[in-house]
Amino acid sequence: MTSARQSGIGRADGISMKGAARMTAIGIFGARGRMGQAIAGVADAAGLVIAGGTDGKAEGTIGAAGAPITTDPGTLATRADVLIDFSVPAALRAHLDACIAAGKPLLIGTTGLETEHQAAIDAAAAHIAVLQTGNTSLGVNLLAALVREAAARLGDDWDIEIAEMHHRHKVDAPSGTALLLGQAAAQGRGIDLATHSARGRDGITGARRPGDIGFASLRGGSVAGDHLVILAGENERIELGHRAESRVIFARGAVKAAQWLIGKAPGRYTMADVLGL
Amino acid sequence: MTSARQSGIGRADGISMKGAARMTAIGIFGARGRMGQAIAGVADAAGLVIAGGTDGKAEGTIGAAGAPITTDPGTLATRADVLIDFSVPAALRAHLDACIAAGKPLLIGTTGLETEHQAAIDAAAAHIAVLQTGNTSLGVNLLAALVREAAARLGDDWDIEIAEMHHRHKVDAPSGTALLLGQAAAQGRGIDLATHSARGRDGITGARRPGDIGFASLRGGSVAGDHLVILAGENERIELGHRAESRVIFARGAVKAAQWLIGKAPGRYTMADVLGL
Amino acid sequence: MTSARQSGIGRADGISMKGAARMTAIGIFGARGRMGQAIAGVADAAGLVIAGGTDGKAEGTIGAAGAPITTDPGTLATRADVLIDFSVPAALRAHLDACIAAGKPLLIGTTGLETEHQAAIDAAAAHIAVLQTGNTSLGVNLLAALVREAAARLGDDWDIEIAEMHHRHKVDAPSGTALLLGQAAAQGRGIDLATHSARGRDGITGARRPGDIGFASLRGGSVAGDHLVILAGENERIELGHRAESRVIFARGAVKAAQWLIGKAPGRYTMADVLGL
Amino acid sequence: MTSARQSGIGRADGISMKGAARMTAIGIFGARGRMGQAIAGVADAAGLVIAGGTDGKAEGTIGAAGAPITTDPGTLATRADVLIDFSVPAALRAHLDACIAAGKPLLIGTTGLETEHQAAIDAAAAHIAVLQTGNTSLGVNLLAALVREAAARLGDDWDIEIAEMHHRHKVDAPSGTALLLGQAAAQGRGIDLATHSARGRDGITGARRPGDIGFASLRGGSVAGDHLVILAGENERIELGHRAESRVIFARGAVKAAQWLIGKAPGRYTMADVLGL
Repeated sequence: MTSARQSGIGRADGISMKGAARMTAIGIFGARGRMGQAIAGVADAAGLVIAGGTDGKAEGTIGAAGAPITTDPGTLATRADVLIDFSVPAALRAHLDACIAAGKPLLIGTTGLETEHQAAIDAAAAHIAVLQTGNTSLGVNLLAALVREAAARLGDDWDIEIAEMHHRHKVDAPSGTALLLGQAAAQGRGIDLATHSARGRDGITGARRPGDIGFASLRGGSVAGDHLVILAGENERIELGHRAESRVIFARGAVKAAQWLIGKAPGRYTMADVLGL
Repeated sequence: MTSARQSGIGRADGISMKGAARMTAIGIFGARGRMGQAIAGVADAAGLVIAGGTDGKAEGTIGAAGAPITTDPGTLATRADVLIDFSVPAALRAHLDACIAAGKPLLIGTTGLETEHQAAIDAAAAHIAVLQTGNTSLGVNLLAALVREAAARLGDDWDIEIAEMHHRHKVDAPSGTALLLGQAAAQGRGIDLATHSARGRDGITGARRPGDIGFASLRGGSVAGDHLVILAGENERIELGHRAESRVIFARGAVKAAQWLIGKAPGRYTMADVLGL
Repeated sequence: MTSARQSGIGRADGISMKGAARMTAIGIFGARGRMGQAIAGVADAAGLVIAGGTDGKAEGTIGAAGAPITTDPGTLATRADVLIDFSVPAALRAHLDACIAAGKPLLIGTTGLETEHQAAIDAAAAHIAVLQTGNTSLGVNLLAALVREAAARLGDDWDIEIAEMHHRHKVDAPSGTALLLGQAAAQGRGIDLATHSARGRDGITGARRPGDIGFASLRGGSVAGDHLVILAGENERIELGHRAESRVIFARGAVKAAQWLIGKAPGRYTMADVLGL
Repeated sequence: MTSARQSGIGRADGISMKGAARMTAIGIFGARGRMGQAIAGVADAAGLVIAGGTDGKAEGTIGAAGAPITTDPGTLATRADVLIDFSVPAALRAHLDACIAAGKPLLIGTTGLETEHQAAIDAAAAHIAVLQTGNTSLGVNLLAALVREAAARLGDDWDIEIAEMHHRHKVDAPSGTALLLGQAAAQGRGIDLATHSARGRDGITGARRPGDIGFASLRGGSVAGDHLVILAGENERIELGHRAESRVIFARGAVKAAQWLIGKAPGRYTMADVLGL
């Protein structure tokens, strides 16, 4: 990583790369998924270089310039300046190892991560810059900041509930974004989300446990992603929501964040860092 | 049951009782619950007689005229012209037996009923008129009719989801009303709800199973009851919802339905029968 | 129009044209507008012929096969089997005249039409088949049917309000679709919409006039089109809405309706006719 | 105003008055209106003294203790420790004069105020403590703080729209609360609301003027007050809303704010001051 490129990034406005010595090359893990393809589209539109991609089968190409899709994360990591991962939890460790070996930063947008995956990311962050997020859009990350503030200001006699709706193909619930918003609410309240969650309500649940943050997931059609945080007090409700009309907003934010990661010191970063929230 | 009273009911407009030979006496199972008290308030306001109530403890009175609260459903059923039950599933069988013994009709609004309770209601309906419903409001029952029609008109490439929110004290999920709306959707599609439900989504659920009707429950604050049925197709959604601003609408509908039940032949009735939908 | 093509249309499933003797040729008035381009995209994807288009300037082409864009509606009407108009009210009369002269059916989706335009359409319908609609999507037209039914069932102590949101480029308010939904509500109630509308509330309006249907318009961002009909009674509300995630649903419905119009006798038709509602 | 009472207020928790030397006496302008009665109910429930009220006719009493309703604001102001005004704009000047003459603080919740009324309040604030607000609820005022922050963070390529719904009896539009939220958005953006408002859209409006804040008003049923602020960007929307289930929240907040005002130096205050936002 040359200092010329680093200062180019420093001056970058949005996703432009004015003044960079050479073009950023982005590597895409999960290249054939919906998000992988959307990222390639945004990168092409922004005039960035796509270093290539990986997927379950080494078949076809990605991006307008026809970069190869392989099954080998190590080769891809060597070729790219920064990696973006919207694949599956099971592939995460191999992707982290490849990035560490190549000394390249990694943006992780994969959802459905468990405690063990978070621990692996923590360990990797000693060696490379990593940003793991449930959502890469500007709007969602601003919403999270508002949710944190609202939760901090309101007493715990206000109940917090989070509902989300996504397209019929989504395989995990709640969405990574719903959990991100729940985390923001928990931080605002100064509580631990893991021990204060109510998920998958069904049957005789008993009355609501005071202090819990509730989650509910809807699936259907082609919904790109709607989220609603409800703070319900006695006789009044505050409702803070976000609607994504298209997945392109996530791809745009992911590419922006990936560019921002280049040249950063090892450690874990957040979208709030990228957006200066 | 005199024919004079029956014809009075027949001519009744809304909850009025013009022309009735004597006042209807309503018995309230679960007299100290939120709904029990709301029903007493509506009955008082409408100038009806409250025969009394039952609850876990034989303590206090119900209604403006101070009718007694006992623990004995049999005595109450003998005294009343019609009974209303918004108590708990465990008490249902005793309430049914008391009504059968006394030959009195019963309106059941208790939620959280299981298959065994439905079977007990079916058996009771051979002897008395019974109306069991997840919701007694006019608006919700009209909504159910619209949901049935929408589900019938749209192909099964439109996914059906039902979300509901209720106050923090509610102990069961999904709400009886959400199930009533799910039943309407299933009827419109000609499918069996029990084998086509997706409830309590949490964790790795896999992609949405085609044809399922999804349910999601939110709890918080003092929400009287909000319901939303989403029919999600490719790139468009139809959203059909109901908001209750106050529990009084359920009490009003329950009293109306109870009056309508008096003098009806044994059998199971529905709110659609009461409202002529 | 050959009978072979007519029977092809008769057997058509959705927008396919299996069995037609030759391909339907669609002419697009307002070819360079958002909807004109979306319609060309849908027609291309469905393998239909685009006869050409008109716009303010005779510049460029439309569709994958590069059909010409001219400024002359007459020439286009002669070349096409059916015409689709999503342009501006001021151009409507010339488009009607061209279709009458050529004896071709016309689908009109232009919004912002006034009484004089409706009269011109009525006159044209003596000579050709015309379908004028505020919205060509399946979902919206089903919603209109549900709104009509709800308005018919509920007493006029339920107030009807219609809110809509569209992207920042839209120039008229309320949207054609909001008016279509208002018309459906008015029909359900048996009232005249023109004399029972409350539009553009601002300042000291006085209390709501009983029986009015209210309209409110929001504009912003890239919203493809959201509509919500609220029926508000004492302590409860029914909310019936539609969300378009993409304009492609309108183009799809427009092409479907245009194909359906070919070979129909002169007269005015509706989307409900097309969809069999 | 004794220092004993002041320190009582200083120690007050919510609307309680522990340790006060004597009870606060509240005077209610517009005593027979919906809000006047709700305030009396809250004051009674909190054990406060109601000094009396004014209304168009000197008839009847207000509050559990039967305080007199007169037509003379001067007498009422003399008797009360603090005055609350939810009446009509035309009566404002007389109420301000009465409070100045008596040296008593005034909380103003009347809606539909024009520039001239604001000027009169400014002038009065040289003599007494005045708090004028479009909404006295905790939730709405927190929402306003969130709206201000969101508007400040997002570029002006995000369009801001404000929709509100109230019961059928409301006579002005937009609601005072919608204007309060618009003011918060304008402050966040650093623009003047008066010159950047789009109200009462109807007919051919042209495309949305960049930078405008739009308002839309719905009326119907018994809705206590719903507000929604939409920030609409390219392909995503942030939606920040509040739902009042009952007017009691406004009465509760008004009484809380009135108590807080006692003993304050002359000047204009806001709900943000009361709530420490």
